[in-house]
Amino acid sequence: MLSTFRRVPRAAPPSTPLARSARPRRAFFATTSPSPLSRTRKLARITALTCLSTIVGTCTLVVGILVHDAFTYNNKHIDRVPINPLALSPERGGPKNLPVVRSQVDDEEDEEAKRLAEKPKLVIVGGGWGAMGVLQNLHPGDYHITVVSTETFTTFTPLLPSAIVGTVQVRSLVEPIRKIIARLRGHFVSGKAVDIVMSDRLLEVETTSTTGKKANIYVPYDKLIIAVGSSSSTHGVPGLENCFQLKTIGDAQAIRRRIMDNFEAASLPTTSVEERKRLLSFVICGGGPTGVETAAEIYDFCQEDIMNYFPKIVREEVSIHVIQSREHILNTYSEAISKFAEEKFSRDKVDLVTSARVAAVTPDHVIYTTHSADGKIEQHSIPTNFVLWSTGIAMNPFTKRVSSLLPNQAHKRAIETDAHLRVKGAPLGELYAVGDCATIETSIVSHLMDLVEEADQDKNEKIDFGEWQHMVKRIKARIPMAEDHLVEVKQLFQMYDTDADDSLSLNELVKLLEEIGNRITSLPATAQVASQQGKYLGTKLHKLAPQIAILPPAEAPAAAIGVVSDESIAGPFRYLHLGSLAYIGNAAVFDFGKYSLMGGLIAMYAWRSIYWNEQVSARTRALLMIDWIIRGIWGRDLSRL
Amino acid sequence: MLSTFRRVPRAAPPSTPLARSARPRRAFFATTSPSPLSRTRKLARITALTCLSTIVGTCTLVVGILVHDAFTYNNKHIDRVPINPLALSPERGGPKNLPVVRSQVDDEEDEEAKRLAEKPKLVIVGGGWGAMGVLQNLHPGDYHITVVSTETFTTFTPLLPSAIVGTVQVRSLVEPIRKIIARLRGHFVSGKAVDIVMSDRLLEVETTSTTGKKANIYVPYDKLIIAVGSSSSTHGVPGLENCFQLKTIGDAQAIRRRIMDNFEAASLPTTSVEERKRLLSFVICGGGPTGVETAAEIYDFCQEDIMNYFPKIVREEVSIHVIQSREHILNTYSEAISKFAEEKFSRDKVDLVTSARVAAVTPDHVIYTTHSADGKIEQHSIPTNFVLWSTGIAMNPFTKRVSSLLPNQAHKRAIETDAHLRVKGAPLGELYAVGDCATIETSIVSHLMDLVEEADQDKNEKIDFGEWQHMVKRIKARIPMAEDHLVEVKQLFQMYDTDADDSLSLNELVKLLEEIGNRITSLPATAQVASQQGKYLGTKLHKLAPQIAILPPAEAPAAAIGVVSDESIAGPFRYLHLGSLAYIGNAAVFDFGKYSLMGGLIAMYAWRSIYWNEQVSARTRALLMIDWIIRGIWGRDLSRL
Repeated sequence: MLSTFRRVPRAAPPSTPLARSARPRRAFFATTSPSPLSRTRKLARITALTCLSTIVGTCTLVVGILVHDAFTYNNKHIDRVPINPLALSPERGGPKNLPVVRSQVDDEEDEEAKRLAEKPKLVIVGGGWGAMGVLQNLHPGDYHITVVSTETFTTFTPLLPSAIVGTVQVRSLVEPIRKIIARLRGHFVSGKAVDIVMSDRLLEVETTSTTGKKANIYVPYDKLIIAVGSSSSTHGVPGLENCFQLKTIGDAQAIRRRIMDNFEAASLPTTSVEERKRLLSFVICGGGPTGVETAAEIYDFCQEDIMNYFPKIVREEVSIHVIQSREHILNTYSEAISKFAEEKFSRDKVDLVTSARVAAVTPDHVIYTTHSADGKIEQHSIPTNFVLWSTGIAMNPFTKRVSSLLPNQAHKRAIETDAHLRVKGAPLGELYAVGDCATIETSIVSHLMDLVEEADQDKNEKIDFGEWQHMVKRIKARIPMAEDHLVEVKQLFQMYDTDADDSLSLNELVKLLEEIGNRITSLPATAQVASQQGKYLGTKLHKLAPQIAILPPAEAPAAAIGVVSDESIAGPFRYLHLGSLAYIGNAAVFDFGKYSLMGGLIAMYAWRSIYWNEQVSARTRALLMIDWIIRGIWGRDLSRL
Repeated sequence: MLSTFRRVPRAAPPSTPLARSARPRRAFFATTSPSPLSRTRKLARITALTCLSTIVGTCTLVVGILVHDAFTYNNKHIDRVPINPLALSPERGGPKNLPVVRSQVDDEEDEEAKRLAEKPKLVIVGGGWGAMGVLQNLHPGDYHITVVSTETFTTFTPLLPSAIVGTVQVRSLVEPIRKIIARLRGHFVSGKAVDIVMSDRLLEVETTSTTGKKANIYVPYDKLIIAVGSSSSTHGVPGLENCFQLKTIGDAQAIRRRIMDNFEAASLPTTSVEERKRLLSFVICGGGPTGVETAAEIYDFCQEDIMNYFPKIVREEVSIHVIQSREHILNTYSEAISKFAEEKFSRDKVDLVTSARVAAVTPDHVIYTTHSADGKIEQHSIPTNFVLWSTGIAMNPFTKRVSSLLPNQAHKRAIETDAHLRVKGAPLGELYAVGDCATIETSIVSHLMDLVEEADQDKNEKIDFGEWQHMVKRIKARIPMAEDHLVEVKQLFQMYDTDADDSLSLNELVKLLEEIGNRITSLPATAQVASQQGKYLGTKLHKLAPQIAILPPAEAPAAAIGVVSDESIAGPFRYLHLGSLAYIGNAAVFDFGKYSLMGGLIAMYAWRSIYWNEQVSARTRALLMIDWIIRGIWGRDLSRL
């Protein structure tokens, strides 16, 4: 590059003042009052420099790509792969006499695989946020890992609303689980967990052939992590089979098809006026972040794409309805945010129906009720061809089955775990549950006997203030979520010491602990909670791994599980709320607990960058960025695939 | 930027020789033996310059994107859109008394739309290469255009084999038809053409609601272009319902799902050895470019992705089979290319079965026959879970229906047109057909009477050599494809003048013309032919438009069609073969007729750039480029969506 720079000054004509200087060759960046000609030359120099570096850069890139590709396109051929006979014809066993997967087909393909095959078997059911968190914090060599999932990929769920209208492509939200477990030399089984045999430590998995034939197998485990997520709560509303959900990639694809179908059908010249109105009426039941973002994305799509490429009448007839049971949308966010979002929607003519209950969904209507000013119940009906149901969560069949197998599992919507994320009632250290399918127990009173035994040092069956202070410490350690409600220790003691004898009787204590337990709210069913639980569990299991490994091989790995307690390795799970955010169409809102943030385009970019940072892989990060740019330049893809 | 450059020389320490010069500030690019220090400084300068321009560039880009986005996110609201009552409740008519779309819903939305509504109605059935060619060469304001298609997008078919394993994404191969017709203010009707009423100029279209309910409508036309493509030829082989085809995006998606399912099922530890072999056996029937490219892509996928992320045994057990009825694969290409491709496949251990006939396809086997050395027929069978059928073309139901309605339509695989692409037997200038669904007549003898009348100037029912020369000119003008076979005019004349009376009797002439007709090969069913036909038709119809428009409105548009003949506007269609190309896995081949080209990585890039240039939009061009880069960096996506 330097030689190019040198050449130009040499050509400088002698008439300029610069050329007359002692060192004309160095006269590149003159400072004081340069002649117009020298300025032009400078400009030319800079332009040349820019062009040159662009060309050099491009050439380097092209050569780089060629060289790179020459290596990805390899001609490796595989020799005979060693394989365990047990993997080719597995023994049958368990209560149902099904094939038991004692050896995976790749357990003997090389030395590393063979070593891993002797490690304790860690089986993870599910491929969502919880599972990814676990995998992220495990180290290669910790366990013989198997992931069992119906989907072969993990999904970046928070951006699903963006995928329903093609703001981002569904392919940009998924990362193959096989690529994620490659680092840990893990195994993947494509199937649905249906049952569990705790006595034999077997997970029953249903596999499906391409012809739809089902075959069940047992996958043995030493430690099992349940991270299967949840399904939507029906709230007893009839007709939910007429609704869409938005929990998986499949849901997003189906919604995208339906939205495009609605617009195409509405553009047909023979569609009647009423039918067109019905086709273009989009109803969203639930005013939480998913519902709000879906409404916002559909609105965006109409404003930016439908407007340009469909008959104008189609845009004119669009109506978007959000039906919310509470008084405000985004009711878990701060009041200011709710108000901001409501005002934005009102400007956009999105129809907000608050304090309303959906009574039924028919194939072409949503029926809901509201209370009139005089307290009477009024019934309304919206004709529609698209209903999204996004309110609350419920157990899926596998979670229900696990719950039914265990004693003291009373929670209706999830599997209850202790603060260490161990499934309550299951053999200690064998079953864990994270994410939407799990809930951490909030009851303190169930620990009453243990707590009293630890605290009541004088064994008088009464707790004095000193003992109470000790007990508070123990409660905080056992159930971190109770912390916020155990601040005013002295006041609590006095309030519940009804007979004012400066000590709490067992009855008084039960009342106190029950009251505190009731005040604790369960953790929300969000990606953030699932991810943190997964990471916590991954870290803990990594720490546990060497403890199990040092036991003699005759006892390990199976016998070693549960010998080293979780408590000795790590504290209970603590949730750190990092804030909530939501996209509301050309604007975004953030709730960081103490302060909140809301605004237009800049906020939207902030919203994007937060999600961009949370991606599981550089690949999806690049894809997302590209999707946003492509949308910015060419708009959304209108194709109905 | 300049001020930054100025500051640095000022800071130069006085100890350097440069600093001592008369104009130290200008001492930036020293030429003769600079001190080590000045060289360091130069380097620093260049680094600073590079960093600075990168930062400035990035900032400009970010600000640019923000400003751009601020404009795409608009808050336009739509006022009442004027609409023709006929579009809201269309009159019924035609033989089946169906709604007739006399007015589209957007025909009165603005002044331009109203003007267009009075133009002749051009209806295009299909959204492939032919249709795109027509649309490309039409000008805004030429016609009132309506595209009728089952798919809302056009597909870049030559890259479909790349999409089946995710080398490129299916979304990168499609462009919404609505975006393409926006330039011409065209209309789009999402539906399937099923019938035609030529007397009333009505196209019957079947529309489908989201619940699957069908409703038929009539779309009136003044000129109709049939560009519906073809389906695969069955060749009478039983069991083709067990095969995949590769003609649409839907096909590519289904194949991709099946391939991923096969690999996942093969990785399950309970899959038996035979079943694994069957799941991993990929059979391709047909050794043309589609078949060869599909085999190559599956091979690539195994080598580059399966190898890295699936159990090794799975890669080991993969077998790819290409069954070809001819002696060589790519038999329409030059011999050298066939050989090159066959050698490549043989190195890659792709099983080539040539001179074989597929006898039947069962749900889990392909049965084929070959001739042994002693001429006996031998039957073979390959267990498989994936069969691609890509041999030959056949009419789809709409093409069959049109063909059956017309006299002198005898062709079995396509609608016959004249050299002007007008459907033979249909009212002149009303029906055109392009692409795979059409074939240009090769029979010269059917023009016998016209030719004789023109040439036989002395009306003696005999053609002397002078008259014959004249006739040859007329034949060439009418049927350009006959040109190659009418070179040795004198020789032909003498050869067929069997009684050597220096003139051709009618009997002799019939023999001659029949012979020449038999020698003409139909144009191949390729994207190249369809595209050229479409463009030819688009140009011609554009030229015709003003001729129709100048007729008084009382007669135009309907009465004007056919008044101006195609012959007066443009010559017959002439096909210019630009060459054939095919990807054969880490290599590509090109056949340009006179010379051919084949090679590895560089050829592959040439192959890519040719397809890259042929994209219908800058958007798909960008997406394709990104797909190739993403594959280069992270490999293919293994997710089964």
